[in-house]
Amino acid sequence: MSRRSKEEIAKIYMKMQDHICRELELADGSGKFEEDEWERPAGGGGRTRIFKNGSIIEKGGVAFSAVHGPTPDKILKKLNLDKSEFFATGVSIVLHPKSPMVPIIHMNIRYFEMDNGVHWFGGGIDLTPHYIDGADAKYFHQEVKNVCDQYDSNFYSKFKNWADDYFYIKHRNETRGIGGIFYDRLEAKDDNEFEHLFEFGLSIGRLFPEVYGYFMKKNSQLPFGENEKSWQSLRRGRYVEFNLVWDAGTKFGLDTNGRTESILMSMPPMAEWEYMHEPEIGSKEEYTQNNLNKGIDWLSFTK
Amino acid sequence: MSRRSKEEIAKIYMKMQDHICRELELADGSGKFEEDEWERPAGGGGRTRIFKNGSIIEKGGVAFSAVHGPTPDKILKKLNLDKSEFFATGVSIVLHPKSPMVPIIHMNIRYFEMDNGVHWFGGGIDLTPHYIDGADAKYFHQEVKNVCDQYDSNFYSKFKNWADDYFYIKHRNETRGIGGIFYDRLEAKDDNEFEHLFEFGLSIGRLFPEVYGYFMKKNSQLPFGENEKSWQSLRRGRYVEFNLVWDAGTKFGLDTNGRTESILMSMPPMAEWEYMHEPEIGSKEEYTQNNLNKGIDWLSFTK
Repeated sequence: MSRRSKEEIAKIYMKMQDHICRELELADGSGKFEEDEWERPAGGGGRTRIFKNGSIIEKGGVAFSAVHGPTPDKILKKLNLDKSEFFATGVSIVLHPKSPMVPIIHMNIRYFEMDNGVHWFGGGIDLTPHYIDGADAKYFHQEVKNVCDQYDSNFYSKFKNWADDYFYIKHRNETRGIGGIFYDRLEAKDDNEFEHLFEFGLSIGRLFPEVYGYFMKKNSQLPFGENEKSWQSLRRGRYVEFNLVWDAGTKFGLDTNGRTESILMSMPPMAEWEYMHEPEIGSKEEYTQNNLNKGIDWLSFTK
Repeated sequence: MSRRSKEEIAKIYMKMQDHICRELELADGSGKFEEDEWERPAGGGGRTRIFKNGSIIEKGGVAFSAVHGPTPDKILKKLNLDKSEFFATGVSIVLHPKSPMVPIIHMNIRYFEMDNGVHWFGGGIDLTPHYIDGADAKYFHQEVKNVCDQYDSNFYSKFKNWADDYFYIKHRNETRGIGGIFYDRLEAKDDNEFEHLFEFGLSIGRLFPEVYGYFMKKNSQLPFGENEKSWQSLRRGRYVEFNLVWDAGTKFGLDTNGRTESILMSMPPMAEWEYMHEPEIGSKEEYTQNNLNKGIDWLSFTK
């Protein structure tokens, strides 16, 4: 078996985007994706799909891109490599629901290679509930673990810790949400492993509409009021803070002339800030705040 | 004349905070500042004053701080200096008005010294109108220039260009607002110059409530509707983007365990994001967007 070409990978990622968009439209029931094709002046381009008029999803998108050109100096310097051409393709998703009872979700699968032979896979899926629910958290992590276990018995624990470290809002001393998995720079030592890692990412991609569809259906039926909407706005503020201050992907994109509108597709429709906001003692907001920590074993979470 | 002590500078900055708060309460007519005193574990502290229940100002604060301790490694590395103690004091202000017709304003004066003799003054004042108005912009820049000219005939043009470069949202290819002045690391060669630079900052501090009081009074009477509120929310989104992605002070503070709530006092009460928003052709929103550029001579702006 010879190694898959980068063109083939990009083509399969595009089909993944199609699949996910179709499933999300079905789950939402009324919203539709609008597509925006764009070209990257230095090489390649993408198609960004933005969700409009949703009944459950308020704002978000599913983006595909496949870009190429001279490798940015920042990467070369970091890897201590000589000038070369790069190719990068991926599918990236952020969805902000209307209801504060439905979690925000993020998923990304990506492949990167340089013409000097260096290549890697990256990706992940993580959940940011406005309100942490023990059963929901357990369900999500168990589903993610099940997929991981099909590929490598060490993936879940390794990539779960990686997500805890990555999705961390240092200046707030809190995690963005309940995490999930995050992985980067997985380089295959042979063609079999290459295929294995590629398939792993696709399985995460296929898992995405299943788990999120579950939350869309179940949690959009939960009641909420002004209090929950106001907490949602503040949590969206934290989401903005993480993405603009700490997210390495966002920072790199904005710093290297990436396509701003596609990068900032992750922004919520709106967000609020309040000086020194403290959730009420004993409230479910305080419960959420108190559980935004690294290192929680959500699979056996019982609090 | 001997050089002023750092303690004396901090004391005068505190009085400046008092003066500005008093003037802003008078100009607003109904809002009051609430004070929050805090201590910095590594040395020093501050008093952050947040405006509450304003009729014109919706959210904002006037912060004073005087902190000291071992100089952060990031600064030592940048300046190529050996370990030493530092002292930093300043007054920092951001105000977000309710009305989209009243501009957002930012002002800061600061003094930094190390026990190895290195010291500098920094500061600035700049305006971010949701709607650019030629006469308002001219008035603001003329007032700032008048103060600068009392100290050095080169200050205005030098510091105006510095503000253009500093308050620039690179990933949007637009300035945050119409700028003003920004200066940093002004080191005095003798005691006379030290006093001169110190006095210059105080004059900027005194100018602040005068010019902003002018806009509060005049512009809060202008009519607006849903369209203007919605544009204000999007412009607030850009303010968030600048502060979290590019503002060196914010980044440094969040990165070095500064007091998060005081640093993020600059966040608007709320902000909105819309994918690929484009102002209508010929609208006053488009006029504003088209004039968010570096290098505009606002003193003779006639468009």
